[in-house]
Amino acid sequence: MISNDDGYAAPGIRFLTETLRQLGDIVLVAPDAGRSGMSTAITVRTPLFLKLIEEEPGLKIYKSNGTPVDCVKLALNQLTNGRKPDVVISGINHGTNSSVAIHYSGTLGAVIEACINGIPAVGFSLDDHTMEADFEPSRPYILKITENVLHHGLPLGCCLNVNIPGTPELKGIRLCRQARGRWVEEFDKRSHPNGGTYYWLTGNFHNDEPDALDTDMYAMREGFVSVVPSQVDMTAFNLIDQMKDWDL
Amino acid sequence: MISNDDGYAAPGIRFLTETLRQLGDIVLVAPDAGRSGMSTAITVRTPLFLKLIEEEPGLKIYKSNGTPVDCVKLALNQLTNGRKPDVVISGINHGTNSSVAIHYSGTLGAVIEACINGIPAVGFSLDDHTMEADFEPSRPYILKITENVLHHGLPLGCCLNVNIPGTPELKGIRLCRQARGRWVEEFDKRSHPNGGTYYWLTGNFHNDEPDALDTDMYAMREGFVSVVPSQVDMTAFNLIDQMKDWDL
Repeated sequence: MISNDDGYAAPGIRFLTETLRQLGDIVLVAPDAGRSGMSTAITVRTPLFLKLIEEEPGLKIYKSNGTPVDCVKLALNQLTNGRKPDVVISGINHGTNSSVAIHYSGTLGAVIEACINGIPAVGFSLDDHTMEADFEPSRPYILKITENVLHHGLPLGCCLNVNIPGTPELKGIRLCRQARGRWVEEFDKRSHPNGGTYYWLTGNFHNDEPDALDTDMYAMREGFVSVVPSQVDMTAFNLIDQMKDWDL
Repeated sequence: MISNDDGYAAPGIRFLTETLRQLGDIVLVAPDAGRSGMSTAITVRTPLFLKLIEEEPGLKIYKSNGTPVDCVKLALNQLTNGRKPDVVISGINHGTNSSVAIHYSGTLGAVIEACINGIPAVGFSLDDHTMEADFEPSRPYILKITENVLHHGLPLGCCLNVNIPGTPELKGIRLCRQARGRWVEEFDKRSHPNGGTYYWLTGNFHNDEPDALDTDMYAMREGFVSVVPSQVDMTAFNLIDQMKDWDL
């Protein structure tokens, strides 16, 4: 099963689908338009629609008005006749989802949703926002990583966040941890023509540990494809121990 | 700073604000209506509005058309004059956010956003969806936990997910880990009056480990307030080691 957050018609998901067809049958369910920044959001107040728009042997493409997570839920619940997909692949995202972007990204939201449902899942993101991005250099990496996941599986509750530099020459794969960082200076405040103010969310990412060799952002800067094994259990086990000294 | 995902007018956030006023000045920024299930979603395609609706000594209340994460970003970037709040408290959510709900909840989205920005943050949720929920039994627990966080701080990248049973008698506090679980049978498929089908997202939570004594869901079932120390770093460090044997 394939999804994304840039919409079913985005070049990234089309490239991903074409690349993965050699590995098996594909059900693609993706938003009808861009849903960037939708995280693991679900739609609870609006009815969801699901429309088959393309079908050929080994490939079905659906679009939905929901979020990426809704798309995964619809696929698992309505389209696969009780069978679980062997793997859920999300992307290729137009733009990086390294570091804490795993929390904001709709592309990774789909991955986390699959993971919660016990399905091995991988998110692929290319560090190039443009619609003309060249996905070709990422092809062998996408195949190799997906084949490995199909072969080895992933532990329950674990998924992979893969980020690919937007450069023609890729140096290989590095297993990394998520870099610490955050966005800064995030609002563009403007005057409305009819009075009052409004804000556009914008800003720059700040890497809090630019020299940490084992992070995804460092690997990408060096030209490597970063693979961050990630988990849905967010428990801070060390802090449980520390808090035993609190007056609670 | 206070936020939530049920909207600035919800009884839960009003109770939280009233409870915490004795601890310091409060800036409340919350959605203008319910944003349940919005996770850590951000708004990138729509302009954001921010409106002051109440002001008295020690308390300012703003509403926004954004998500809970947008509300925290607006507060930190536009309202606090470069000062960081001592703590960000989100809730009290009308309904539990235990187990994997940390990924879907807008209330916890606000907590994660504060955490990414290096601010100690706590999410409070009551296991009662109704607008008539009785928050009173939770008052001493909210004060005690918030006072402890103000006193001890929280490690960088860590926050607390607190869930409170919807019962009048609470037995105390337990430090827990996030239970493994997921939602099942999630769609109500209906016929549209004008033809075609649509879906309502619904379903029941399935606890994959109902007998695990150290989980939040077990503690709540026993009548305890569960506190899950949580972290924004989702890296699965064990899996990094395992994957070194893969053919990558």
